[in-house]
Amino acid sequence: MNKIEHIGIAVNDLKTSNNLFEKLLGVAAYKEEEVASEGVITSFFKTGPNKIELLASTSEDGPIAKFLAKKGEGIHHIAFAVDDIIAEMARLKKEGFILLNEVPKKGADNKLVAFVHPKSSNGVLIELCQDA
Amino acid sequence: MNKIEHIGIAVNDLKTSNNLFEKLLGVAAYKEEEVASEGVITSFFKTGPNKIELLASTSEDGPIAKFLAKKGEGIHHIAFAVDDIIAEMARLKKEGFILLNEVPKKGADNKLVAFVHPKSSNGVLIELCQDA
Repeated sequence: MNKIEHIGIAVNDLKTSNNLFEKLLGVAAYKEEEVASEGVITSFFKTGPNKIELLASTSEDGPIAKFLAKKGEGIHHIAFAVDDIIAEMARLKKEGFILLNEVPKKGADNKLVAFVHPKSSNGVLIELCQDA
Repeated sequence: MNKIEHIGIAVNDLKTSNNLFEKLLGVAAYKEEEVASEGVITSFFKTGPNKIELLASTSEDGPIAKFLAKKGEGIHHIAFAVDDIIAEMARLKKEGFILLNEVPKKGADNKLVAFVHPKSSNGVLIELCQDA
């Protein structure tokens, strides 16, 4: 794990929260991107070597819609940058972590991603993230 | 906000979770520190320029005990590194954020810290963090 690549935060409305996080972080979002396969629209903010990703739902039954219905707005996941996502997935599987993906998938911001089930990591949804 | 200084994760048992996060991150905790005033014992892991802070409760009615009772184990807060915590607190207050501290207080890991109420920041407890 090289660094925290980003923290994903689930929000009800992207425009409202873009405005809020621009005030909080003192910088504007540098991009918005829809990930249709996940039913989300995202925006990204830079904070030095790290990013904040806001996630709003574009579908009624996608993962962010479900998260918001259950828990409300708040931190959704932590993403760590890795050099070799395949090797890191194999290492974590061997250590007993439960992976939510058998193979990496295409995520936002030109990344290959895979998730670790929060049940196996202290209630924290972990994303592995490699430059595609 | 210079970078994500650390992410704070509430855990039931520090020893168990130190072991888990050592496996997850591939590095051991570099220190443990009790913050008696907050009723917590903490451990810190390095992930490149960022840290993961695990927080276990040492008191029955401290903030981490209350968080665990309400939400269970999981991400508790995001801490951002700032150069001038007084100036940043004033800026955020002016922007309409609710600060939980009027003046910075001494936190773990030799930092001056102040918190932003999650009600004013999309359900996310934000910590500002300046080297003491």
